[in-house]
Amino acid sequence: MLRMYDIIQKKQEGNSLNEDELNFFITGVTDGSIPDYQISALLMAIFFRGMTDEETVMFTECIADSGEKADLSSIKGKKLDKHSTGGVGDKTSLIVAPMVAAVNKGVYVAKMSGRGLGHTGGTIDKLESIPGLKTEQCREDFIRIVNETGLCIIGQNCNFAPADKKLYALRDVTATVNCMPLIASSVMSKKLAAGSDCIVLDVKCGSGAFVKTLEEATKLAELMVKIGTGAGKKTIALITNMDIPLGRNVGNSLEVIEAIDVLNGNGDKNLTEICITLAANMLYAAKVASYDKCVEMVTQTLHDGSAKKKLADMVESMGGKSEYIYNPTLFGESKVSALLAAYRDGYIYEIDTELVGKAAAELGAGRVTKDSPIDYKAGIIFHKTVGDYIKEGEVLATIYTSKISKAQNGMELLFKAINISDNQPKVKNLIYKTFGGQV
Amino acid sequence: MLRMYDIIQKKQEGNSLNEDELNFFITGVTDGSIPDYQISALLMAIFFRGMTDEETVMFTECIADSGEKADLSSIKGKKLDKHSTGGVGDKTSLIVAPMVAAVNKGVYVAKMSGRGLGHTGGTIDKLESIPGLKTEQCREDFIRIVNETGLCIIGQNCNFAPADKKLYALRDVTATVNCMPLIASSVMSKKLAAGSDCIVLDVKCGSGAFVKTLEEATKLAELMVKIGTGAGKKTIALITNMDIPLGRNVGNSLEVIEAIDVLNGNGDKNLTEICITLAANMLYAAKVASYDKCVEMVTQTLHDGSAKKKLADMVESMGGKSEYIYNPTLFGESKVSALLAAYRDGYIYEIDTELVGKAAAELGAGRVTKDSPIDYKAGIIFHKTVGDYIKEGEVLATIYTSKISKAQNGMELLFKAINISDNQPKVKNLIYKTFGGQV
Repeated sequence: MLRMYDIIQKKQEGNSLNEDELNFFITGVTDGSIPDYQISALLMAIFFRGMTDEETVMFTECIADSGEKADLSSIKGKKLDKHSTGGVGDKTSLIVAPMVAAVNKGVYVAKMSGRGLGHTGGTIDKLESIPGLKTEQCREDFIRIVNETGLCIIGQNCNFAPADKKLYALRDVTATVNCMPLIASSVMSKKLAAGSDCIVLDVKCGSGAFVKTLEEATKLAELMVKIGTGAGKKTIALITNMDIPLGRNVGNSLEVIEAIDVLNGNGDKNLTEICITLAANMLYAAKVASYDKCVEMVTQTLHDGSAKKKLADMVESMGGKSEYIYNPTLFGESKVSALLAAYRDGYIYEIDTELVGKAAAELGAGRVTKDSPIDYKAGIIFHKTVGDYIKEGEVLATIYTSKISKAQNGMELLFKAINISDNQPKVKNLIYKTFGGQV
Repeated sequence: MLRMYDIIQKKQEGNSLNEDELNFFITGVTDGSIPDYQISALLMAIFFRGMTDEETVMFTECIADSGEKADLSSIKGKKLDKHSTGGVGDKTSLIVAPMVAAVNKGVYVAKMSGRGLGHTGGTIDKLESIPGLKTEQCREDFIRIVNETGLCIIGQNCNFAPADKKLYALRDVTATVNCMPLIASSVMSKKLAAGSDCIVLDVKCGSGAFVKTLEEATKLAELMVKIGTGAGKKTIALITNMDIPLGRNVGNSLEVIEAIDVLNGNGDKNLTEICITLAANMLYAAKVASYDKCVEMVTQTLHDGSAKKKLADMVESMGGKSEYIYNPTLFGESKVSALLAAYRDGYIYEIDTELVGKAAAELGAGRVTKDSPIDYKAGIIFHKTVGDYIKEGEVLATIYTSKISKAQNGMELLFKAINISDNQPKVKNLIYKTFGGQV
C-alpha cells in the first residue's frame, strides 16, 4: 500500500516517482485525503530535487486526469489552442485567434482563457471590456459559436485539472511556484484537459515575464513540448521577448483597441510580427500548409479585413456589441488622463515590464486580489519605446485612470519603470527560439 | 512586517534566518497563526539547506521560550539533567540518577522523562512498572522530593516547548525528522525549558539508535553542546554504542531489575561502565571534583549500597513500594516464557538492536500507538551477547510475554535480529567520544 510519507521521502532522497506514486498523490490531492502539510512538503522536495522529463510527463497527465475534460468532438475540424505564459500588454490571443479562423481551412480555435492577477492581464478581462460580451457560455453555445464562426474564447468555467488548482494555491504560499516541472505540469495539465489537437505555446521571457532568462525559458519550452507531444498533441513553443511590453497599449479596452489596429493592418510592428508568427505556427501545427505558405495566408487576413470580421463575428455571437470592433472610439476615454514626459535627453534604455504591469494595476487595469473590480478603460499608452531617442520634455506615455490619486501612484511606478540613458540599448530579438515548429 | 512566505523563500535560497524571523516563525507555530502547509514547507527547506550553528542556537532558544519553563529555584543546590537520544534497553537514568544523588555533594537530579514509542523504551514506563509509583507529581511535590532525596524523575506533564510538539508532529509525517538542526533543537529546547544548570547528553549511535553513523552522531553531539553552552548551561555529550542492546534485559520491569543488579555492584560490565561514565560526567559538569575523583565517588555508591538506597527512597517518596528495589523477585514473572536457542555453532556477530526493540514491543513491552497499554513484565533477557562463541542448541535469550501468539511473533523478530557467523566480530568501543567533558 502506498503511503504519502514514503513518497515524500523517496523524492527527498532524489529518486523519481513512478506512475502509481504520482497517481496516488494526485488522487489524494483531488479528493482531499492527503493533508496540505504533506502536499507542501512534497512540493518543496520537488523544488529541490526536480523531476525527470518522463516523470513530469506522467505527473502532468495525472493532473489532467484529475477532473473533467472538454469534449470538443462535435467541432467539425482540427481544434487549436494557444497559450501564453503571461506577460504585460499581451493581447495576442485577441488577434491570433481571428487570424487563424479567417484563413478558413478547417482549423478551429476553441480556447479557454483566464483572468488577470497581479501585474499580468487576462484575455477574459480584455474581452469583457466590450459591452454586452459574455465570457461565460454553456458548452453547447461554445461549440456552436466555434462551428459557426471558427473561433470562441471563453472563461475557464469547467472543472479542469482541479488538482492543479489545489497545488497552485499551495505553491503560491510556500515559495514553490518557481520550479520548472511544477510550472510546466500546471500549464500543460489544463491544456491537455481542454481537448485541442494542437497547442502553440508562447513562452514569455524577460523582465515582465515569469521566466527571466533565456536558459530558463528554453528549459520550460522544451519540457512543455515534451509533455504535449507525449500526450499525443502536436505542440509548438515559441520563446518571445518580454523585456519590453508587447505593443504600445496596456489595459483592457486599450488592448482591444490596439488589437483592432493590428487587425486593420496598421498596428505596432513588433506586435504584428509576433501575431503573424504565432498564427502561422498554429496553422502549421495543424498541417494546413508549409510554414511559409501559412505566413502568407495569415498575413493576408490582416490586409483583407477578414480577421477583423472574425473578431466582430465572435463578439456578436457572444452577446457583445460588434460595432465597437468596427469603431473603437466607442470605447470612450477615462475620466483622468496624464502625460509622462522625459526628464532628460537620451535613449530609452530599458522599460521594466513588471513595473509597467504594476503601474497599470495601480491605475485600475488589474486586480490586487482575485475579486477586485476592474476599470476597463484604465491603462497606459506608450508613445515611445526601447531604443527611441527622446528629448527632454517629450511625451513618453499617457496614462488613463478614474482618480487623480491613482494617477499619481501609477505615474510614480511608470516613471521608475522607464530608464533613460546616453547609451543606445542593444536591440534584442523579438522571437528568440521555436521548439517543435518553425519561425 | 515579516511574512512567512518571505521566510520560506529566504531559507529556500540558502540564507540564514535572523532572530526576528525565527521568533516570528516559532510564535506563529505556537499560536497557530501560521498554517501547517507553510510550516512543513519551511521544515523541508531547512532539511535541504540546513542551518548555521548560530541559527540553530537562536532557533532552539525561541522554541524553549514558546511555553512554560520549569522554575527549579527552590532546589537548594546545582540542578543536573541527563538525556539519552533514545535506544533499546537503555535503563541508565534509573541507575545514574541515584548514583549522582548518593554522592551527596549538593548536586540534585530533577529530571523529566518521556514514555516509550515504537521500538524504544521510556524511563517513565519503566518506573511505572514498580507498583504504586506515581510518575505524575505536582510541582511542589517534585521539588520537595528532590530536596529530600536528591533526585526525582517525573513524567513531562508541563507545557514545555509547545512549538516543538507541533513541529515534531509535522516532521513525523513529512519525512523531515532526520535533519541535524531540527533534531538538536527539538531535544535541547526541552532541556533548556526544564531549567537545570548542567546537562549531560548520551548520544546513542548504531543500529538501535536514531543516528546510525559516528559522523552523524559527532555532528549532533557537537551541535547540542554548542546550543546548551550558548544558553549558559554546562553541557557535556557522550557518544555511546547502540549497535548492541545496553545490558542484558529489554522490557520495563526487566530493566528495573537489571538496574538494581548494577546498583548492587554486580550488573552487566558494559552497562556499569557506561553508568559510571555518565554519572561521573554529571558530577564533573557540576564542578564537584576532578573527573577521576568523580569516577571514584560514583563507583563507591555501587559498592556501599548508597545508590540503591537513593533509588528506593525516591520510589517510596513517589508512592511506590520500595521493597521491590530491595527484593526484585517481587516483580514476578510473565505467564509465558520461551527460550531462543542457537541453530548453529559460531560467534554472535551482530544483534540488530532496532529489531530487538521491535521484538520487545511485539511481546508487549512497548507501545504501537501513543495510547497502547503496556505489559510491564514482557520483554527479553539475553544470556549471550555480541562476540560470544556459542554452540548449536545453546540458549541465547529468554522471552517473556502474556500470550503464546505474541511469543511466536516476538521470537521470529528476535531470531532475525541475531546474526551467528564463523567470523569473530570486531570489538567496538562502548563510548566513542565525549564533548565538553572527559571520559
